Amino acid sequence: MRNASNPNRDLQTTEAEKHQKRSQQMEDTTTLSVTKPTRCIVKLGGAAITCKNDLEKINEENVEIVSSQLREAMITGSSSRKVLGMDWSKRPGKSGISCDADDFEDQNLDSSSFVVVHGAGSFGHFQASKSGVHKGGLNKRLVKAGFVATRISVTTLNLEIVRALAREGIPSIGMSPFSCGWTTSERNMASADLSMVAQAINSGFVPVLHGDAVLDDLQGCTILSGDVIIRHLAAYLKPEYVVFLTDVLGVYDRPPSEPNAVLLREIAVSEDGSWSVVKPTLEDTKKQESSQSDIPKGDYKSFAVRSTYVFYSLPAVETTVAAHDTTGGMATKISEAALIAKLGIDVYIVKAATTHSSRALSGEVKGTLPEDWLGTVIRFVGKGNRNC
Amino acid sequence: MRNASNPNRDLQTTEAEKHQKRSQQMEDTTTLSVTKPTRCIVKLGGAAITCKNDLEKINEENVEIVSSQLREAMITGSSSRKVLGMDWSKRPGKSGISCDADDFEDQNLDSSSFVVVHGAGSFGHFQASKSGVHKGGLNKRLVKAGFVATRISVTTLNLEIVRALAREGIPSIGMSPFSCGWTTSERNMASADLSMVAQAINSGFVPVLHGDAVLDDLQGCTILSGDVIIRHLAAYLKPEYVVFLTDVLGVYDRPPSEPNAVLLREIAVSEDGSWSVVKPTLEDTKKQESSQSDIPKGDYKSFAVRSTYVFYSLPAVETTVAAHDTTGGMATKISEAALIAKLGIDVYIVKAATTHSSRALSGEVKGTLPEDWLGTVIRFVGKGNRNC
Repeated sequence: MRNASNPNRDLQTTEAEKHQKRSQQMEDTTTLSVTKPTRCIVKLGGAAITCKNDLEKINEENVEIVSSQLREAMITGSSSRKVLGMDWSKRPGKSGISCDADDFEDQNLDSSSFVVVHGAGSFGHFQASKSGVHKGGLNKRLVKAGFVATRISVTTLNLEIVRALAREGIPSIGMSPFSCGWTTSERNMASADLSMVAQAINSGFVPVLHGDAVLDDLQGCTILSGDVIIRHLAAYLKPEYVVFLTDVLGVYDRPPSEPNAVLLREIAVSEDGSWSVVKPTLEDTKKQESSQSDIPKGDYKSFAVRSTYVFYSLPAVETTVAAHDTTGGMATKISEAALIAKLGIDVYIVKAATTHSSRALSGEVKGTLPEDWLGTVIRFVGKGNRNC
Repeated sequence: MRNASNPNRDLQTTEAEKHQKRSQQMEDTTTLSVTKPTRCIVKLGGAAITCKNDLEKINEENVEIVSSQLREAMITGSSSRKVLGMDWSKRPGKSGISCDADDFEDQNLDSSSFVVVHGAGSFGHFQASKSGVHKGGLNKRLVKAGFVATRISVTTLNLEIVRALAREGIPSIGMSPFSCGWTTSERNMASADLSMVAQAINSGFVPVLHGDAVLDDLQGCTILSGDVIIRHLAAYLKPEYVVFLTDVLGVYDRPPSEPNAVLLREIAVSEDGSWSVVKPTLEDTKKQESSQSDIPKGDYKSFAVRSTYVFYSLPAVETTVAAHDTTGGMATKISEAALIAKLGIDVYIVKAATTHSSRALSGEVKGTLPEDWLGTVIRFVGKGNRNC
């Protein structure tokens, strides 16, 4: 007769030992920190990586270019530029899987200092809004079904983004906020254990998180947006800079589809949380406006108080999809960006898959903005607000 | 100027407050328990849900039948038998997504009492063994790449299993052990926070976990098998019974491809961890063996000490794939099943997508085994081992 002694020691632990162990783990989590400074947190906006008006369709071209730009941004001086793919899935029509094992030694991607978060775009929003997942009520079968359907949709997108990054040789690891144990309380973040994200970074991986359906301890469930996730990650990881990739050049003073929309190049956030436009200057704008007789005169302050359309970084077509947007829309997006800037971290909002996004990702536009760089930077200016 | 006050209150918390909050959360986790007894933990064996010799190919037929059987097993007496799918992904060739929102109210699946864990089969094993993920060494680029590739492969399978279950109206939620924060220490389980699994169950979902590549605090990384996961879940959730679905009828005394292989119907596990065969009895076997002159006489004890091939529940073709098996193979599988039985939980090992699996899942074979039920039950018998 064979003795089936337990090869895994922890089954024999008593409840008291378990409690002690958990407390120890908690302490480890509390003291756990990333061993390497995070260079950049990147938000892949849903509008940039999916076809907004085509349900569950990825913008393959943008995703490929963005992945390649991310790879370029991660490369350190001495790195080989040869791409060694990490998605070893079977390709359609092929019977086997191949990987060139011998080539992996000379690769030196500085990948541990990036974190990726992506939005949902045309994934998930339909399922969430159809069932009202963002409003909660898991006791309703429809909401529960919508929760399941939403998670299926957003994790499908997550897997595709992880694969696209891996094909570019980026050691990407998909991490769903739901599985990570992130929950909300009345739609505000209640718990967000970042220890696994930190461990993944410490091990040299690039965590890839996403907007997700999560449990809410008061209303049952809700949708946690990628923008809120970014802010929490930024507060914890203190990256050098944050880049939001979207599908227009940056933040505008009105819907960018309007002919006179002005791209706001630099926004200053002061300590009290207020913000103002630094560039273009009021003078620049007056000059521009004086040549446009059909537009009422105004300055940024007057735009700023019209909070319903203060800043726009998504195109007008967004409004046709807005009914599906369960994550708070533009107000949340800008508000989150300003909160990150308030931490002393520069935030760049830039059009994905352009030379501008490439330059923002590599950190080239830090400091004084190059004149030929198109995008919006949101920066902390300390106590004095230069424009007020 | 607009005041960008923070809509999410926790950003303003100090480090001390955060520490206190985390400690509170830890306490919550420690005291957190499932509010409803778990009826069954189901292992969908890799061999049953994938085509073992066809890389990254799902056994669609088996997965569909198993999902349907699971649904039947979950239905309570008064439930509607109409299937209300929860996978609202866009179907190929269709432009929109449809869900019949009005039909969701009369549905009453007793789904909160099931947990699903699946193996990898022809997903993940190639990537893991090619790179040696199970042996660790994340400082090597090949291992890191293999880790990424393995996770892509197993999460691809997980997503498909979640979708198949959702199509049957089962509120399934994919949860990756890596993202859940499960780690190992020298390949033994080091931390396995089950609070999110418990929360998902309490909210009426069916968590769907899987064998995964995880971080190991000594060797960097390893593979955590679905069988080890099952045992941990069983120890915590104390289900009424556990069902392992595989691709042969149950546990055999030798490779089931051999003509004289005997299906072991009932195995008893005693308190000291030893086990013995209760059914068929020694007499039954002698009767059978006396008619088979080419097989040496023996009893189960002699089989039992030949530990290299004591019990087999996978077909001979398995041996051709065994080089890819990074999870410990048959010895681990049987050992884990016996450890679960030792907790006082009946374990059924049965062929997937048969009437036998259907009966095991529904709990119909609990107690005295029906004569016409084919499969293996592993049971705890307390201090006295009936067969020793």
